Amino acid sequence: MEANEQVGPEGVSSKPVVCFLGPISSYTHQATMQAFPADRFDLMPVATIKDIFDTTQSGAANYGVVPFENSTNGSVVFTLDHFADRSNSYGDLNVCREVYLDVHHCLVGHIAPALPSPQPPVIETSSAPALNPTTIAADLRETEEASGSGQQTPTAQQPHPKAARSRPSHPISHVRRVYSHPQAFGQCTAFLGSWLRGIETIDVSSTSRAAELALADPSGESAAISSAVAAELLGLDVLARNIEDREDNTTRFFVLRKGVEGDAPMPLKTDTETETETELDDSRLLSSTKSLLSFTVPHRSPGALADVLSCFRRGGLNLTSINSRPSLTGAGPFEYVFFVEFEGHRFQDPRGRVARVLEDVAAVARTSRWLGSFPTSRGN
Amino acid sequence: MEANEQVGPEGVSSKPVVCFLGPISSYTHQATMQAFPADRFDLMPVATIKDIFDTTQSGAANYGVVPFENSTNGSVVFTLDHFADRSNSYGDLNVCREVYLDVHHCLVGHIAPALPSPQPPVIETSSAPALNPTTIAADLRETEEASGSGQQTPTAQQPHPKAARSRPSHPISHVRRVYSHPQAFGQCTAFLGSWLRGIETIDVSSTSRAAELALADPSGESAAISSAVAAELLGLDVLARNIEDREDNTTRFFVLRKGVEGDAPMPLKTDTETETETELDDSRLLSSTKSLLSFTVPHRSPGALADVLSCFRRGGLNLTSINSRPSLTGAGPFEYVFFVEFEGHRFQDPRGRVARVLEDVAAVARTSRWLGSFPTSRGN
Repeated sequence: MEANEQVGPEGVSSKPVVCFLGPISSYTHQATMQAFPADRFDLMPVATIKDIFDTTQSGAANYGVVPFENSTNGSVVFTLDHFADRSNSYGDLNVCREVYLDVHHCLVGHIAPALPSPQPPVIETSSAPALNPTTIAADLRETEEASGSGQQTPTAQQPHPKAARSRPSHPISHVRRVYSHPQAFGQCTAFLGSWLRGIETIDVSSTSRAAELALADPSGESAAISSAVAAELLGLDVLARNIEDREDNTTRFFVLRKGVEGDAPMPLKTDTETETETELDDSRLLSSTKSLLSFTVPHRSPGALADVLSCFRRGGLNLTSINSRPSLTGAGPFEYVFFVEFEGHRFQDPRGRVARVLEDVAAVARTSRWLGSFPTSRGN
Repeated sequence: MEANEQVGPEGVSSKPVVCFLGPISSYTHQATMQAFPADRFDLMPVATIKDIFDTTQSGAANYGVVPFENSTNGSVVFTLDHFADRSNSYGDLNVCREVYLDVHHCLVGHIAPALPSPQPPVIETSSAPALNPTTIAADLRETEEASGSGQQTPTAQQPHPKAARSRPSHPISHVRRVYSHPQAFGQCTAFLGSWLRGIETIDVSSTSRAAELALADPSGESAAISSAVAAELLGLDVLARNIEDREDNTTRFFVLRKGVEGDAPMPLKTDTETETETELDDSRLLSSTKSLLSFTVPHRSPGALADVLSCFRRGGLNLTSINSRPSLTGAGPFEYVFFVEFEGHRFQDPRGRVARVLEDVAAVARTSRWLGSFPTSRGN
């Protein structure tokens, strides 16, 4: 069966199904559209990262798209926790592609409503700053300090205090609460600390869901951090644009599939032109592909971590990332499952270097599991 | 000046000051009391992890206690982000001790209030389960499914679905929202998924603060995940005990200080008896101490990570943990600052192995920084 053509349950030929972390207009949706043209794939939103793993493992979708890490805020631990596969539910899944998406967050909500009399209605246009934003921020800060600290969630803290990159394009003093995904809060600490300090922040499952909740609040006091796309779709006002801490805010996504299907070249667009194996010299092939591996090491044998990592060095394969999560499978606390990415492809490996290193790791680690090989989409 | 005696601002001799992540009765407070006997130290609550770093760096406190990692939920990224010290504010701080605390979470709030007539008042005792908890859970689940998914935050997901370890000791169907710290939510996923599925979860800065917010809600519909100590202190009811996913739920804390003070032996209790240097052979000394180091590697030179890690192997020092966070200091995204812990002490190092490895790392890494050496409190 071709990857871009399949027979549906009713025997009708249909497009391959790609599930993604919804709802519609989420950042994962945007990354999915970038990788899977809508004319050739059926895109299916699901509610949670777990649903993506479940739906792809069950075969109900051919591919699943999950966020893996953000350049500002670090790893997506919920995705790592599913790759850890502690209940052994996702044995057939592997990563076949990475996708990068530039992420620009907006504060979205309702432009301050006309106040009921006796106050005169506030008339505003997008070009006329009716209130001095600095004054607003100072007011908010005073309010927060007067009410005592400790109410803020750590996501509203600034681990590296600096000025916000952008200012609100509309007054935001009527905003009393902000909904968003924890990762988005973590990427907008400077804006939140400068302009919305002390305001309640409420974690929800996605930035799109956050926008829906802001829309649903008739008081207009709720705002959300989401994409401009989500605001547009819902008819919400954009109160501030590009509120992310860093201009180069990028999220990296992984595409999951079930089985390796002989690892035929993916029928997908790639950011960089892929060349055939024979045209590439070995080192170029290595540096144009990456693999993901998880492993655990024997308990009470901390030297084993170094032993495993030295396998990559001995095999001449560069490590490009390393992560760890609690393993939660051993007898005691503070055992970890490690995740490494390294240059090289399990199947496009003419000199057998990747295969040898995977064997070496398996001999030293307590457990190890190849989680996928894929073309590199951007230079490291 | 002795570490356990100092001259205060008014020239009055006073005890050394230890700041911790407050408020009173937080888990960090409990860990602090465990390490710093109240008769010999002044314990000072501060509001945020940043405040602990600031207060210790400024000298306003002699020691600061920060949570570093939890055995169920992984690293405390806000602490890592401060160790990354991206604004170069904490150059004098180092870790001089680790403290382990067994963490038992409770659901605390108000026992279901007597309902207004016409309903008869519900009379309950702690031993009489007035409602079948399974029915409550099933009801909640139906409500949640009917209202559509996607509203849950990822912290409420179960990356490793399993039965909750404990049941509520009182009916909890009146609970409409739960306050807690994100880390605590992450440690109670099974209980939340089984008993409070679809209920709004609100992140706040500490579990103690969460308990205060539950107390402040006159409707009784707010609950909190916090310690039994916090509930007791505030006069809240404990609705369920030991709701953490794992019995061995443990948080590891670091004690910060400013400068090395000649690295005199700490005037503190330790979990294990420390012996003098001369009585310990070299390998025993190595395995009874640990050091923390951060480093970055040259951009676009992924092999450098393996180069740095091989320094530890070559020097015979076991790695005991590794973490990474976005560096946010380089020119582009997806550069990392790495944190490793390894066996060995910078100053209790008769054969000079630690010093040599630190030199080797400095030669290979782009930047590297020793962040402390301390006695190991528990076996790994």
